[in-house]
Amino acid sequence: MKIETKKVTFDEPLYCESGRILQPFEVVYETYGKLNEDKSNVIVITHALSGSHHAAGFYEGERKPGWWDNFIGDGKAVDTTKYFVICMNNIGSCFGSTSPLSSHPLTNTPYRFRFPVLTISDIVKAQIRVLKSLDINNVKAVIGGSMGGMQALCYAIEYPDFAEHIIALATTAYTRPWAIAFNKVVTEAIRNDPEFKDGYYDPQDIKENGLKGLAVGRMAGHISYLSPHSMDEKFGRRYVDQDGLYELFGRFEVERYMEYNGYNFPHRFDPLSYLYIVKTMNIFNASRGSDTLAQSLDKIKSKLHLISFSGDLLFKPEEMVEIYDTMCEIGKKDIVTHKMIDSDYGHDAFLVEVDKFEDYVKDILGNKI
Amino acid sequence: MKIETKKVTFDEPLYCESGRILQPFEVVYETYGKLNEDKSNVIVITHALSGSHHAAGFYEGERKPGWWDNFIGDGKAVDTTKYFVICMNNIGSCFGSTSPLSSHPLTNTPYRFRFPVLTISDIVKAQIRVLKSLDINNVKAVIGGSMGGMQALCYAIEYPDFAEHIIALATTAYTRPWAIAFNKVVTEAIRNDPEFKDGYYDPQDIKENGLKGLAVGRMAGHISYLSPHSMDEKFGRRYVDQDGLYELFGRFEVERYMEYNGYNFPHRFDPLSYLYIVKTMNIFNASRGSDTLAQSLDKIKSKLHLISFSGDLLFKPEEMVEIYDTMCEIGKKDIVTHKMIDSDYGHDAFLVEVDKFEDYVKDILGNKI
Repeated sequence: MKIETKKVTFDEPLYCESGRILQPFEVVYETYGKLNEDKSNVIVITHALSGSHHAAGFYEGERKPGWWDNFIGDGKAVDTTKYFVICMNNIGSCFGSTSPLSSHPLTNTPYRFRFPVLTISDIVKAQIRVLKSLDINNVKAVIGGSMGGMQALCYAIEYPDFAEHIIALATTAYTRPWAIAFNKVVTEAIRNDPEFKDGYYDPQDIKENGLKGLAVGRMAGHISYLSPHSMDEKFGRRYVDQDGLYELFGRFEVERYMEYNGYNFPHRFDPLSYLYIVKTMNIFNASRGSDTLAQSLDKIKSKLHLISFSGDLLFKPEEMVEIYDTMCEIGKKDIVTHKMIDSDYGHDAFLVEVDKFEDYVKDILGNKI
Repeated sequence: MKIETKKVTFDEPLYCESGRILQPFEVVYETYGKLNEDKSNVIVITHALSGSHHAAGFYEGERKPGWWDNFIGDGKAVDTTKYFVICMNNIGSCFGSTSPLSSHPLTNTPYRFRFPVLTISDIVKAQIRVLKSLDINNVKAVIGGSMGGMQALCYAIEYPDFAEHIIALATTAYTRPWAIAFNKVVTEAIRNDPEFKDGYYDPQDIKENGLKGLAVGRMAGHISYLSPHSMDEKFGRRYVDQDGLYELFGRFEVERYMEYNGYNFPHRFDPLSYLYIVKTMNIFNASRGSDTLAQSLDKIKSKLHLISFSGDLLFKPEEMVEIYDTMCEIGKKDIVTHKMIDSDYGHDAFLVEVDKFEDYVKDILGNKI
């Protein structure tokens, strides 16, 4: 499978929901597969909080493939022998698209806290600009999980004629306080870290040394991505150090896992980006701009497919059921489906347990559902 | 209701499970009600992680009463007109009993990391010493929730002739990785805070200024004490600042709650104590010293009453069911009861929703159950 990574720069402003503008702005994206002649085989993949445009395949020398490689590729659920798949790095994120560390055009210094607060709508608006620049005016499907699912819902509501199918996994129509609370831990942990220097850190330094505040916050995040059950399965009560029982900092395996994932994270992710992205999730509300969720969902014309996971503690299945029920109540039963996947894994099931929903996605894309 | 706060010092060593000793050691405790002549009306209350010996009543000028005042008092479930109630500050904790900030007898400087890693058994052993010093050799009941419930189980297993009734609420026979993971966040947050100074902080300074690492870690803890549902009820998606939507640090109410509880905590709790106490919880395992949980539970002679809460995400009801089922399997069905309280509140229900189990406790103490 061939990977093409590209960057596109827009000189015309992006008008953000806050009233602020981003001008210029850039988006990095990756494509897999081949665009057919009438451009009818496009699938947009939207990524989650810490994801990137690198959704599938291996770069040269890379040991781990893109983050949804088990789902996207030749012959896979999102079959790159059939579809032209595009995944764009969200603006605000730190993998090449315009972010808080990009240069402010007037000062040629990083935006940092002068960067506008973005919303999911702003992120999608930037993506639409990329797609239009490629002369893609409608797509076969938009597929995303978690924060990617929020983007998928946003496509459905704000661009009703754009996608034939919207597939939103492990997400919500509005972020509940439980998820906001997890984000709060990382927000405070970052801000309190003296090395964050109130946002005026040296990006290279912080990447090399790793910001401990971000690491600790990320550990809390990892709890929310798993579940009591998946942790029992993965780690049990096994010790790393057999003699560590009476050592104050002797570790259980679950602790080593958290250290590994926590402390590695700041080497690849930027703390200002993290602050801005969790903000987009916290304030996401599919019914904003309407009086009710029903009124928002009433705009949808695409086929909306909701996939939830029974053990997801971050965005609970009930949150997807609410969307499904509301769609039914407003007479859109024929264009909505909800599949609940039986899973104990937790929120990350949408990344890990692809085998449980790949056939369903194939059927959707084959227009059987 | 009269409160008596006392401190007792033991010159004879406390032999800890780790092989280390504490000598001398002190325990602060509080009593309510009156000890009857044959000393048959004693109830021991065991406290949780951040609790103290101040379980009920108001000190002079105090605005908030002891932590279980809705449960303990004249005419309440634990009726201080009938019972002599005693609650002891756990050793390792920071409310007056011997702790990592106590003086090491050889150097007259604080133990800090020279303090021995304690276990729940060690904590209970120290309590037994206090009770024996009062010539109390058996009690009507031991009652505790969460980490207090671990202590209650420990009384049941290690001191089978000591209590008539053991009431363990919202607890577990061994801490699962989910709970260990939450403790990991606070452990790392404390250790990474430069003001912690690798444990060599000035206790007065840190109490006045508040250790931010402990604050952030405590925020993660608060997530585990609540539930998605109770947070929805308490906070919804309400904003503190009406215009804060596009302010990066504009706050939701749930965020204000976490800030309030997080940042106030270090003014009343010591970080070294916190590290030592979460360690006791992490390594708690009611079956240690036996081959199986069944073998441990087989030692129990007291009536064991388990109270779990359906919405408890920290120590899930299944963990109590496991204890109940094991008791039944080993032929102890006649001395075990399990009551599942229907609750969406989360782990803290044992502190908050006393009205849901107070009658049950009254019946136990009245020997009706």
